[in-house]
Amino acid sequence: MKFRMLTPGPTPVPEETLLELAQPLFYHRSGQFRALLREVTSDLQYLFCTRHPVLTLTASGTGAMEAALASALPSGSKVICLISGRWGERWRNLARALKLEVVSVTVPYGQAVDPLLLQAALREHRDAQAVCATLSETATGVKNDIAAFGRLVAATPALFIVDSISGLCCVECRTDDWQIDLNVSSSQKGLMLPPGLSFVSVSDKAWQAIDRNRDSRAFYFDLRKYREALATGDSPFTPALSLVRALKVSLARLRAEGIEQLWAKYARLAAMARAGLQAMNLELFAAVPAEGLTVARVPEGIDGIELLNRLEKQYGIKLAGGQDTLKGKILRLAHMGHLDAFDVLAALSALELVLLELGHDLEPGAAVAAAQRVLADSLFVPRVV
Amino acid sequence: MKFRMLTPGPTPVPEETLLELAQPLFYHRSGQFRALLREVTSDLQYLFCTRHPVLTLTASGTGAMEAALASALPSGSKVICLISGRWGERWRNLARALKLEVVSVTVPYGQAVDPLLLQAALREHRDAQAVCATLSETATGVKNDIAAFGRLVAATPALFIVDSISGLCCVECRTDDWQIDLNVSSSQKGLMLPPGLSFVSVSDKAWQAIDRNRDSRAFYFDLRKYREALATGDSPFTPALSLVRALKVSLARLRAEGIEQLWAKYARLAAMARAGLQAMNLELFAAVPAEGLTVARVPEGIDGIELLNRLEKQYGIKLAGGQDTLKGKILRLAHMGHLDAFDVLAALSALELVLLELGHDLEPGAAVAAAQRVLADSLFVPRVV
Repeated sequence: MKFRMLTPGPTPVPEETLLELAQPLFYHRSGQFRALLREVTSDLQYLFCTRHPVLTLTASGTGAMEAALASALPSGSKVICLISGRWGERWRNLARALKLEVVSVTVPYGQAVDPLLLQAALREHRDAQAVCATLSETATGVKNDIAAFGRLVAATPALFIVDSISGLCCVECRTDDWQIDLNVSSSQKGLMLPPGLSFVSVSDKAWQAIDRNRDSRAFYFDLRKYREALATGDSPFTPALSLVRALKVSLARLRAEGIEQLWAKYARLAAMARAGLQAMNLELFAAVPAEGLTVARVPEGIDGIELLNRLEKQYGIKLAGGQDTLKGKILRLAHMGHLDAFDVLAALSALELVLLELGHDLEPGAAVAAAQRVLADSLFVPRVV
Repeated sequence: MKFRMLTPGPTPVPEETLLELAQPLFYHRSGQFRALLREVTSDLQYLFCTRHPVLTLTASGTGAMEAALASALPSGSKVICLISGRWGERWRNLARALKLEVVSVTVPYGQAVDPLLLQAALREHRDAQAVCATLSETATGVKNDIAAFGRLVAATPALFIVDSISGLCCVECRTDDWQIDLNVSSSQKGLMLPPGLSFVSVSDKAWQAIDRNRDSRAFYFDLRKYREALATGDSPFTPALSLVRALKVSLARLRAEGIEQLWAKYARLAAMARAGLQAMNLELFAAVPAEGLTVARVPEGIDGIELLNRLEKQYGIKLAGGQDTLKGKILRLAHMGHLDAFDVLAALSALELVLLELGHDLEPGAAVAAAQRVLADSLFVPRVV
């Protein structure tokens, strides 16, 4: 059976990136490594849309989230966490562990955070030192309005800290234009790499806060160490060398494609997925959908876990289900990483077959046809992307 | 030119492990990953010589060192750091960043820490809550007497915390028998993997301290999260999946070889290196040498950096030099990871050639002959390993 993974991290990795991982090691305290790190840093800056440094950490995304908070915020700092799902909750839990004072702005699962809620919170908490947000809420498929948040936060002394882990490359994200002070991402989503690396871009405003912070207990996650090492092209701690090397290969592919073209591509895949899921009478879950994944409710009377198991076992299609309280209730069809329109068609086709088998009311072929029409329209109808 | 890397991390990685890195990804919230993590955990327990859990972190070794301290010790705890080089200093610097109270027991570079010094420190500081030591001091090639330290610490309430990063598999290390409470290692040395993973074994005494610690600000490095996830075979954060998969391949090879056979093998390589270096009239640096690397002083009048550059450029032999104050003054010939006696011979041969070229007084062939005699003796003279 041919296996297709449409999961929101890990995502499919291009073959030439995988093969780069199999290259023999070299010593990392060397000109060879310094040239490599400089190159990937430049490519990351391009994809982040920032002229500020992007630091590379050997850790999963949560590690880089912790590095942002722990480096910039003394304990006791007030932090507004915008929470639209599990990953917004991650900001809150992290902030609490770091003994920060958390103001939670929470919306129901499936909703995006209304910028008016942030505006009210900033008025009420003029002493807030940071606002933490999530670009693409991987748990619900929701996209938050980072540009609007950024305008509000920039008018205050607070830092704007964003998790763009599952968003980067899939969802428009302009770090500098949108005034994101610390933008955190990781390797295993839109960057088309296995997990193991994470990244943080740091604005001047963020560096000022980091340099003022005398309370930090961070060592491995002390961003100052990464800035200092990067000045000579180095990494402060032994980096996951094979992954950095493979990163260069994936970044070259992404840069050649162009960041705006990537956003347009994922928007097309998302539109196909939405059209297909709706054509099989499924209800979409996200009020404002992110372009990297599409989430739908599992229909009443169907066991969501059984549905995903059958997709995988019978057709080799791996989707993700819901987590925590959403377990069994939603399916998450991710279209991020190294996949294309035909992979989305394959997933829709298999999903139709399994839903038919499980007795769901649908018209065979309707979903793939609907998706195909979106694809054809996007290619043949003139449009400004 | 054929390239040979005899550096103390990264180390050469077996081809079948490299090829495993090139395998396509799979979803990590799955039975497939849980089976994998259980298997590598069992193999790690074997190599650590422990029946306690060995936790796998996506981070370099310093991350796991931080996890050990941050999880187990409230700020203000008194910690005795045994310092025989840069990596002992790492314990001290980490402890200070975590706002621990550090008692430094320092010996000159090239010396091991005398257990009597620890005995005196423990008598003077009966309130010490931990002792941090380094099995193999990668900066100087020194081996510390972890077994003796362990006997002393076990008689006190303090935790015994060991960095066995460059020691594991090369230098005898019996976690449970030597009463090591937190034993930290990482992937890119004796475990024959690229960098990116690190490990901590945790004794019952250490878990008690961790569960008592209400002051920790650790989140990504909170070992309780790893214990909880491991109970179901999971990882609390997205793991560096490709590396875990490749780890399984390297661990299978190491386990098949046998831990005592590995110690014997590296002891043989170390004896060859010492005999060879001395036969070319170089002075050994480490008073008590670790089996994973051999360190020699660069002779007076020879530029150590030039020496290493010529070895690499002319003969493809990569050794490491000194760091910080030892820069240019020592050479570090590492024989850890996937290499054998013939690689050591190659390094000695090239070193002879470069030293001759640089005008050092030596008898051509003496070094390789001396090493060869050690090798022959180790194989043909009956001995109890």
